[in-house]
Amino acid sequence: MFQWLIADGFIPNTSEGRLESHESLCIVNPYEQDALITLEIFFEDREPITPIELICPARRTRHFLVNNLVAPSGASIPRGVPYAAFLFSELEVGVQLSRLDTSQPQLALMTVPGIRVGSSVV
Amino acid sequence: MFQWLIADGFIPNTSEGRLESHESLCIVNPYEQDALITLEIFFEDREPITPIELICPARRTRHFLVNNLVAPSGASIPRGVPYAAFLFSELEVGVQLSRLDTSQPQLALMTVPGIRVGSSVV
Amino acid sequence: MFQWLIADGFIPNTSEGRLESHESLCIVNPYEQDALITLEIFFEDREPITPIELICPARRTRHFLVNNLVAPSGASIPRGVPYAAFLFSELEVGVQLSRLDTSQPQLALMTVPGIRVGSSVV
Amino acid sequence: MFQWLIADGFIPNTSEGRLESHESLCIVNPYEQDALITLEIFFEDREPITPIELICPARRTRHFLVNNLVAPSGASIPRGVPYAAFLFSELEVGVQLSRLDTSQPQLALMTVPGIRVGSSVV
Repeated sequence: MFQWLIADGFIPNTSEGRLESHESLCIVNPYEQDALITLEIFFEDREPITPIELICPARRTRHFLVNNLVAPSGASIPRGVPYAAFLFSELEVGVQLSRLDTSQPQLALMTVPGIRVGSSVV
Repeated sequence: MFQWLIADGFIPNTSEGRLESHESLCIVNPYEQDALITLEIFFEDREPITPIELICPARRTRHFLVNNLVAPSGASIPRGVPYAAFLFSELEVGVQLSRLDTSQPQLALMTVPGIRVGSSVV
Repeated sequence: MFQWLIADGFIPNTSEGRLESHESLCIVNPYEQDALITLEIFFEDREPITPIELICPARRTRHFLVNNLVAPSGASIPRGVPYAAFLFSELEVGVQLSRLDTSQPQLALMTVPGIRVGSSVV
Repeated sequence: MFQWLIADGFIPNTSEGRLESHESLCIVNPYEQDALITLEIFFEDREPITPIELICPARRTRHFLVNNLVAPSGASIPRGVPYAAFLFSELEVGVQLSRLDTSQPQLALMTVPGIRVGSSVV
């Protein structure tokens, strides 16, 4: 099982200008079979949201808008709250989280690759 | 064979100010022989563009403007469409993708190293 | 013991607009036990600040505001001074440092994962 | 010998506002002995600049302004020209390159960790 962590997740509350503040969780699957990725979301002071299951088809990419992700329980990730992500998959896909922040009038961008961890979480 | 993934590729549609929105795929080859890098581009809902072959000469860097890359088929990477990249090479070059976004009047920057994968794709 | 380095730390002196310049040291702990992370802060021309002990509870994240961190000696990290960080923990948590810079009126963002080192520091 | 690559180096030509466009090459040395780091700079269409020797003292960080680095030959890194970096050291220091770009009036930031390579360059 391949495992990744992303420590800094945050969807800004506010947006100015034409572009809305958002985060994109990007997956790329270069293999000949579809990939199932399980996502767990951790917070500072509340219970995790888990599991959110994502599919990235064979030889495709998916750029998931984080504020649109919904767990089977109906739970989703609120804006303005620090969160973090744990992902795992049987395929060694590529994982990256990008933030576009328009809290102040001109946009800002940052991105981070998923951090591979070898210790067994699941 | 060394292999890298980049999950978040996107060339913004619009530009404001003096600088045009673009992405640079940067390669560095510190070795005494030229490097051949093969690039495959994946999308969300269309067939991959593959292969694009890149040369980075010995002890040189190449900063490729992504919107200028063209496959032998004539296909290129459209603006405003999420994509991802898979690269492989027999030399352990350095791979990095940077985005300059001027969709709103002041520029934003982000960059990510290519994510090394060990599972055999090719 | 797992160990991480972050080479570029800097809390800007000035802020304009609604958001204050700051850095967030983000930890995620996906395991079933609480994580203790020890942090050492290095400077260019003064003695290190060490140790700062951080707790990240089981299955939670913590986004620590760097300018609020305080060592047992009472020392904290000044604004406007280059610093770097060394972290270690018995759990393989996720570590990431993000900077929000509003020195000029619109915000800028950057983020970096903690760099894993295998050589024994502690 | 530990080795790192940075593929995307570029010191913008122009600056607006209070802050000058620059890049910082940041090193952190958490060990009890001083670190000697050798730096080679690669370009697209000219000979490399090599070697530039950097010292990062024991338990200190150095944030080197890239446009101030000078090789023994007197050569330095010009603004407005794509470059890349190769670094090596006998100590497993932390390496990171950050760019502050004020080409358009509000600043932009990006940062990348040095990419560890295992193949023998030197």
